[in-house]
This record gives sequence, structure tokens and C-alpha cells, in this order.
Amino acid sequence: MGSPVHRVSLGDTWSRQMHPDIESERSMKQVGEKISRALSGDVALNIHRVFVRALRSLGSEEQIAKWDPLCKNIQIIATYAQTELGHGTYLQGLETEATYDAATQEFVIHSPTLTATKWWPGDLGRSATHALVQAQLICSGARRGMHAFIVPIRSLQDHTPLPGIIIGDIGPKMDFDQTDNGFLQLNHVRVPRENMLSRFAQVLPDGTYVKLGTAQSNYLPMVVVRVELLSGEILPILQKACVIAMRYSVIRRQSRLRPSDPEAKVLDYQTQQQKLFPQLAISYAFHFLAVSLLEFFQHSYTAILNQDFSFLPELHALSTGMKAMMSEFCTQGAEMCRRACGGHGYSKLSGLPSLVTKLSASCTYEGENTVLYLQVARFLVKSYLQTQMSPGSTPQRSLSPSVAYLTAPDLARCPAQRAADFLCPELYTTAWAHVAVRLIKDSVQHLQTLTQSGADQHEAWNQTTVIHLQAAKVHCYYVTVKGFTEALEKLENEPAIQQVLKRLCDLHAIHGILTNSGDFLHDAFLSGAQVDMARTAYLDLLRLIRKDAILLTDAFDFTDQCLNSALGCYDGNVYERLFQWAQKSPTNTQENPAYEEYIRPLLQSWRSKL
Amino acid sequence: MGSPVHRVSLGDTWSRQMHPDIESERSMKQVGEKISRALSGDVALNIHRVFVRALRSLGSEEQIAKWDPLCKNIQIIATYAQTELGHGTYLQGLETEATYDAATQEFVIHSPTLTATKWWPGDLGRSATHALVQAQLICSGARRGMHAFIVPIRSLQDHTPLPGIIIGDIGPKMDFDQTDNGFLQLNHVRVPRENMLSRFAQVLPDGTYVKLGTAQSNYLPMVVVRVELLSGEILPILQKACVIAMRYSVIRRQSRLRPSDPEAKVLDYQTQQQKLFPQLAISYAFHFLAVSLLEFFQHSYTAILNQDFSFLPELHALSTGMKAMMSEFCTQGAEMCRRACGGHGYSKLSGLPSLVTKLSASCTYEGENTVLYLQVARFLVKSYLQTQMSPGSTPQRSLSPSVAYLTAPDLARCPAQRAADFLCPELYTTAWAHVAVRLIKDSVQHLQTLTQSGADQHEAWNQTTVIHLQAAKVHCYYVTVKGFTEALEKLENEPAIQQVLKRLCDLHAIHGILTNSGDFLHDAFLSGAQVDMARTAYLDLLRLIRKDAILLTDAFDFTDQCLNSALGCYDGNVYERLFQWAQKSPTNTQENPAYEEYIRPLLQSWRSKL
Repeated sequence: MGSPVHRVSLGDTWSRQMHPDIESERSMKQVGEKISRALSGDVALNIHRVFVRALRSLGSEEQIAKWDPLCKNIQIIATYAQTELGHGTYLQGLETEATYDAATQEFVIHSPTLTATKWWPGDLGRSATHALVQAQLICSGARRGMHAFIVPIRSLQDHTPLPGIIIGDIGPKMDFDQTDNGFLQLNHVRVPRENMLSRFAQVLPDGTYVKLGTAQSNYLPMVVVRVELLSGEILPILQKACVIAMRYSVIRRQSRLRPSDPEAKVLDYQTQQQKLFPQLAISYAFHFLAVSLLEFFQHSYTAILNQDFSFLPELHALSTGMKAMMSEFCTQGAEMCRRACGGHGYSKLSGLPSLVTKLSASCTYEGENTVLYLQVARFLVKSYLQTQMSPGSTPQRSLSPSVAYLTAPDLARCPAQRAADFLCPELYTTAWAHVAVRLIKDSVQHLQTLTQSGADQHEAWNQTTVIHLQAAKVHCYYVTVKGFTEALEKLENEPAIQQVLKRLCDLHAIHGILTNSGDFLHDAFLSGAQVDMARTAYLDLLRLIRKDAILLTDAFDFTDQCLNSALGCYDGNVYERLFQWAQKSPTNTQENPAYEEYIRPLLQSWRSKL
Repeated sequence: MGSPVHRVSLGDTWSRQMHPDIESERSMKQVGEKISRALSGDVALNIHRVFVRALRSLGSEEQIAKWDPLCKNIQIIATYAQTELGHGTYLQGLETEATYDAATQEFVIHSPTLTATKWWPGDLGRSATHALVQAQLICSGARRGMHAFIVPIRSLQDHTPLPGIIIGDIGPKMDFDQTDNGFLQLNHVRVPRENMLSRFAQVLPDGTYVKLGTAQSNYLPMVVVRVELLSGEILPILQKACVIAMRYSVIRRQSRLRPSDPEAKVLDYQTQQQKLFPQLAISYAFHFLAVSLLEFFQHSYTAILNQDFSFLPELHALSTGMKAMMSEFCTQGAEMCRRACGGHGYSKLSGLPSLVTKLSASCTYEGENTVLYLQVARFLVKSYLQTQMSPGSTPQRSLSPSVAYLTAPDLARCPAQRAADFLCPELYTTAWAHVAVRLIKDSVQHLQTLTQSGADQHEAWNQTTVIHLQAAKVHCYYVTVKGFTEALEKLENEPAIQQVLKRLCDLHAIHGILTNSGDFLHDAFLSGAQVDMARTAYLDLLRLIRKDAILLTDAFDFTDQCLNSALGCYDGNVYERLFQWAQKSPTNTQENPAYEEYIRPLLQSWRSKL
């Protein structure tokens, strides 16, 4: 426990000797962060917070001044109603209408079809009193696209639905039983003109439409929510799964490594290490990434609220790409951790099933992952075309930092000559950049070949999306590798910590190379022999990481209470706890209704015949 | 509906003009099979059947004559108690003891530790009256390994636990809420000598131990159960998920392929096809494989019961490999189908969540998949070494049919010159065989290098398991490709059906090549340009399969009732059904207890302060 690794608590900082005032500020923030990580989203009225984010992003100063205190004091309970029964990620397709009536200076909010029913908003089914309804604005006869409207939906007196409001719960889900995801139909519900959020667009009393922001402004709340999701809800769930699986794997014994030995801890098997250590590595990779994304976000967000949209393309590409990648990898990783615990990982007493089913949702909510990856792909295509413009023809904007590698010097062949050469951040970062460039170039060429052969632009895009998807995923992986290596560089004054974390960084990069080895072999950037070297390096790393594995998960600093797992407690008393917890199950403390109804008659019918 | 494809119902045969008697026999069998597929394991007392299988496999003729009728009439309710709290797949580690007492001619069955508690047996928690307990036999002071004992556990009079029996339910699980998975502790429970199943081993009255079968005989029930699982429980679940996702994907519309078009069906997007069609292809691939495995099993099983164990290694390798691969791919495929339905796939009303959570269990039960793959790997190593023995040195046994490719002529380079060349079963079967041979050879060489450099045999095995795993998986994939092509050949008199199914076979083979392209590029068997050709062939296939997609899932022949999905009904009325089903949720028909307790006080506390 005295190992330096134990000090890499994600809630802590590495600095020492700070001024006590700033330290107390930080520790307050840490308490808040720790609470949020501990609960990882399992709190009541979670969507109330999304309403607040949207209000602050899209509302005018007057609107924020009016509604923010009501929300803060929970004088109203709010939700964010965007998704409809028939439309999710494709927001332009939303059917709910908000028609401006200049005579009364009101908007008439209406669900014209069954599929226009708002569906999924959290806290809506049984709790919310107000909804921020995303609807197609129609004013002076023209359709103006999606805008956000504050709509009171339940009486503040007795909580009954207001006139024109049909509302309820959407029924059972794979998880989130504690959240009342709801539906909402609006039948010509009128709200005052002031209820349209108007930081980026206004409707004047006479119905004149005034645009202040870009077409993308309305997507801003989703960017905010996505960025906060990553470190607040998605990543802590994978980290919890890692803690549970790792602790269980040094308690569980199975089979013998040698006939004369006692049974071995399952974590000493190479196959178990292969299941768990890559998940540990991405837990750290994503942690550093989420931190730097949050910093970039805070910087850009302030600019955007002040009508400076220059950071928006990069912010959008990074936040969508990282949301897609982190939710995908965390879901896959948590399921891997669950399976690595064998049968006991299937018991709810392990705590693992709900971690997996919660994460599964994150692949779909706040933007379906395939759609998000394809948005990254469009950004990559644009960025690549930007590098191809002949200098001087158009004033060349500088490339966004995340794609700066598109113009970096490239090698045709990887210089690695032995396994140990793969333990070099520069070598593998360059390798990932090389493959990303090749795949982006390949995807652009396929697109151009199709359009040049007469295919219409949209058809050409659809016929190449599988290829674009591959490029976007490799780009995102590159971003995580690059981010991890940059985080390592900042640890140069903490060599012991740096050494341990570098193994995880190496493992993350090399694991990805082996999983996608076809992409690296395709143009002979790597040879088969080099892939074998990478595999040797990978297997050696598994052995090295083994000895720090428990401390590296202890460092996530989750209490037994918030892990809520019979397998994952700090003391390792797995079997005692499983047995004790099982006794408390209602199936053991209550009568068995099936006995009197089915089993007794069945067994006794035979006895009476004898 | 008049398409030939619609006649490829998996419950049907392709023959015509049969004798009416055999036809009626077949249709009776079909009814049974259809019921089993429709319910895919969701039946009460499922483990009672496992007990019967084990009895028939391991019992003497007298024991079968005594117990089989009791089971058949459900005069007793039986379960199969193997797994313990501390031990699962590694059966030699089971701790429960059965000590023979020659004085009374009884076995004393005992759980010596907490971890020896039997844990997981289905129907045990609240239902079973008898258990087949797997325990370490101790007779005349010697430990004889695991044997099976029939132990009465509950009174047939009043269902209370018998003396020395502590029994209960293991608590909530990820799924299978309808099954009372239980625990069982035995405190020196005595059963008569006749209760040890004795087809392959007996204890004589004086305590002499007589072995009749091989060391593997006791594993026979697990082979039976695994083979039946594949077509009875695992595969139908993936097929149901495919039906639901495919039907939803032609109802759901999202975004526009061209700005002037109406919104497109999501199944017309290449990325949606890439998600679903490989799952459709493996549904068919696994169907043909399960059929041929069942045939081989029935043949071998009869021989084994008659003490002819020559088929056992092949049967064991095939059944473990196919169990591991089918459960892994079906779980992954069903989850892919679920996610392809976006948010609605997360609703339990879609029917998809429980399909996924049920399949997840199959990756662990009846043998954890990694352990099973490694058993396949041991078989592959042995088979490979067999091919390397110099002819004449030892009488060379013939290779098992599933690994005959180890000695087939091999090409160093794939001859494909254009995309269409990849649509050739011989070409891709050869390609898969080539890669399998290379990886098996590679795994053997790594093993030998380590042992030659002084590593002990077991350590060398553990340090190469990641490599063995890769070889075993590729071998299993080869088996599915080969099996599918053989099934196609039998359809030569049905060219229209053959054509449609060949596309799925091609897709299955090529999808695997692209997913594992590194294995094919590693020794330059495929060039990068050839991988691109394979990708072109793959994308073309997606387009071709698109038009038959609905009929190919209709052919699985599941009724709306057994799909139990608001998204997957035959009529396609997705949104109406989602809305109607949601209304029936208890959250809509019952009061909201949270309102009075939390929400009203919260909202009214502010009103009273105003």
C-alpha cells in the first residue's frame, strides 16, 4: 500500500505544497466530483440538470434570470423533451410543431401525429412540471427548424396534467428502472412568446424571425451534456467494473498452473490478464482524455456563448467522437469484466450486470454511436480536403489540433526491429497516425471515385459509410493514444508513477494495434514479423502490469458502499458475502407461491394413485 | 411471399413426395422442435431434463429402469448439482465429498467448506426433490475423482428439506428470474450404494473400485447438454433478435438519402446492413452446423454408451468449440440487433433486452468459453503433432475429419484477382484453412520454443494461451464456413434457394476475413489490394441481400406471440403497439408513491414560503 501507485488517486492531484486556500477550494470540488463519480448518474431528477444546461446555453440573459433560480431551488421540476416516438438522432425530422400566433403573441405547440409523441425524456413520466420542448418553429408561414420552448406540463397545485397535455411512462427498460422515462403529447398547447429560448434566434412580436447564431447553435446543449457524461457517468462505470473484476480475480482460484501447486489465482492466467488489463488501460486513457476534453470544452464554450463559433467544428468532432468511442469501449469493457467473473458475474449480487446494462444505453442516448462516428468522418473528410488545397488558391485555415497529424511527416515503414521498440510512445503514436491518414485518404478517394463516375453525392456517401466508419474509429483511437502519451509527459517529475502508467499507455496502444493488425499490415507499414514483435511486447506487458493491478484499481478510490458488489469489496471476502447476501433475497425470506399452486398438486397426484 | 426463399423454413425439409407415414412422423417431430424453438429454453423444470440426460448417460440399465419413469411422470423433480460456490468449469477442483462406508453400504455426501456449497443448479432453490450431486468419490481411503450420486433433498410429503440438507435460492440474476437457481449444503447425508451412477464406474459392497469407462466418461452428460443447447436454446434467440431488428428496420425511417426524398428506411443504409446482415448470415451458418453436429453426436453417442470411445476426442472438440463460438457470436449478434433498433431496442417492450441477457449467460454456463476454446486448442496441438510424426515411426491414426485440412495441399498466396473471385466457396474455404494451419503451427512452435528453452510444460502452456486462443477461434470459424458450403452443395436441386443462401455463405466467410484481415495479411497470403477486393465483394453482397432480408427472417417462422416484441410483429405496426403496450405498464395504471412522499412536499414547501 506504500507503493507510489497508490497515490495515483483520480480524485487527487499530483502537486504538493500548495497554498491552503486553493487546496480547500480544490478539495470542495473534489468532494462534489467524488459524489458524482460514486453515484455515476444514479440520482433522482437527473434530467432537471439537462434542462438547466440547455437553458444556460440557449436562453437569453432575461430568460436565465427568470428560470434558473426556479430550477436551482426546485420550485419547478424540469425535463428536456427532444426525442420522439418516430425520431431520435435525426433532429431535423422531429415532427412536433410550434406555430407562432401573432394575434396573441403565443406559440401553439402541437403533436400532429402519433410518431410526434415525445418519448424517453427522463423525469417526464411521473415527476416533471415543466418541459423544454424541441419543436419545429413555424412563423409567418415559414418553417424555421428546431427551436426550444419552455412548456408547463403539470399543475404546480396538484400535479395533474395541464389542459392539452397527455403524459405517462414509457414502460420497462433494460435498466434505469429508477428513472421515469416518459411520453408527452401536446394538443395545441399555448405558451407565451417569451418561452422560446432566444440567445441565438428570436421571434419578434409581429412574427419576424431573427437569427443570431449559426445553424448549429441549437445543438449546443447536446455538446455540453455529452462532455459531462463522459467523466460523470460513462467512465466511472467501467472503472467500477474493473475494480470488482480485479479484486475477484485474486480471490478466485481455478485449476493448477503445475500439477504439484495449489490452485492458482485466476489473475495469474494470461487469458484473464488479456481480458482485464486492456480495460484497466482504457480506464486510465479515457480519464486523461476526459480531463483534457473538459478543459478544451470550457475554453470553447465561453467563446461560443459570446458568438465566437470558431472552435465549434473541433469541439463537435471531438465530443461526438469521444462520446461514441468511450461509450462503445466502456460497454464492451464492462461486459468483459463481467464475463471474467464467470458465473458469479451473472449474479446481480456482483453488481456487474447493472453496470453493463447502464453502459449499453450510453451507446444510443445523446446521439447514436454510428451516426456520431459518421459526423466525425465528415469532419475528417473536410479536414483532409483542406490539406489538399493548393497553397495560395484559397486562404488556408489552420487545421484543428486533433487532425494536425494529417500534414505531419509520414513514414512508409515502421522502424521497429525488436519487441522492445514497441514500448516507444513516439513509435506507436506515429503508427496510429499513419494508419489514420491512410484510411481517411482511402475513404475520400472512394467517395471521389463514386461521384466522378456519376453517382449523386448523397448516394456516394451512403455507399462509402462502412469505409468512413473505419477511418473515424481509427482516428478516435489515435486521439486516445496521443492524449495518453501527453498526459505521461506531464508526469516527468513523478518517475515512479510515470513508469507504471506508461505500461498502461503502451498496452493501450499495442492492444489496439494487435486488434486492428490488418489496418497496419495493409500497406506493409508493419510486417508480419513486426506484428509478432508487438505481440511479444504485449504479452510481456501483461506480466509486468500484473503486480500493480490491484493498486491500480484501488487508486480509483471507490468505497465498498458505492461498488455495491459481493465480489468487489476491499477486504476480498467474496464467498462469505455472496452467501450472506443471498440469504436476504425475497425468494428465501418469503413463501414459495408455486409450491401450493403447482408442485404440491403435481407430486401428490402420483402419491394418491399409488 | 411467393419467393422461393420463403420456403426455406427451418422447420421444414426440402424433400417432396414422401411416404405419408414418415411425413407424419416428421411433422410430429417438427411440432416438438417448433415448440422448443419458440420457447427457447423458457420452460419450467428445465434442469429436470438435464438430470434425465445425465441418468441415461451415466446410469446402469437398472438405475435407468428405476429412475427414468419417476422422472418422466414427474413423480420426483430433479436437478443436476455440479457447480460450487468456489468451483465451476474446473471439475477436478470440486470439493463435495462422497465417502463410502462399507459397514452400512452407504455413501456419506458432505460439503466440507463454505466454498463446497453447490451454487447455481436450476430448479434447486425452491422446487427439486432430488439432486444428481457431482462429488469426489473416496473409497477404501483413496480419492477416485468426480462421480455422480442421486441424493433426495426434499420430503415428498411436505417438501421440507431432508435432514442434513441446507438449501435455498442464490438471489437475483441478470436474467432467468423464472428459474430458481439454488444453493445446497450437505452435512454428512447418507445415500445407499445403489445411488452412485455406475455405467462407467462402480463401488463394490466391500469398497473395491471398478473403472469401466475412460477418465472422460463422466463428462458425457455435459457433451449431451451442450449439443442440445445449441439448436434448442442458443441459436433460436439470435434468430428471434434478427427477425425483430429486420422488421423494425424497414418500418423505422431516419434522415434522407437525398434532400428531395422522403426519409429513408434505416435498412437502406449501408451501416445498418453491415450491422444486421452478418447476424442473419451466422443464423443460417449456425443452423446448418447445429444440424450436422447433432447427426454426428447421435452417431457417436450410441458408440460411447457401448464403450467405444474412438469418436470422443472429435466429439469433445467440436461440441466445446461450437458451444464457445455459437454462444459468443450469438450474444454479440443479438446485442448488435438490439443496438440497431436504437432507443426502442433498449425498451423491454422490444423483447430484445431479455434475448441479450439470456444469451450472455450462455457464454459462461456449461463451460466458460475461454476454457472451452483452450480445450479445442489442446486438440489442435495434438492433431498437428500427429501430422508431424514421421510416417512409419508410429502407426499413424487418421486425423479427425474437422482437422483434415491440416494435411491438405496449401497455397502460399490467394489467387483472387478481382472482387468477384471472393464469391467462390473453394477460394474462401481454402483461405480460412490456410490461416488456421498457420496459426496452429505458430502456436505449437511458440510452445516448443518455450519448453526447449527450459520452461516447464505447464508454464509454457500458460505463457502461450493467448496465441492458442487465436488459433482455436480461427479453426472454429473455418468449421462454420466449411459446414455452410457443404450445406449449400446439398441444395443443388433447388437453385433459387441455393442462390439466396450462397450470398449469406459468401457474406459469412468474407465478413470474417475482413474482421480478421490481419491474420490473412500476416504472411502475405492476401495482399492489401486483395483485402480491398474482398471489401468490395462484401459491400456488393450487402446490397444484394437487402431485397431478400425480410423473407429470410420470416423463414425462421416465429409467431408474434413467441417473439413478444412491439417492434417485431409480422404486421409492422411498431409505433401503435409501442404506445398501446406502454399504457399497460404498472407505472401508468398505479398511483405514484413518490408524489405524496417527495414531490408534493418539495413543491409545496416553496409555495408556502411565498
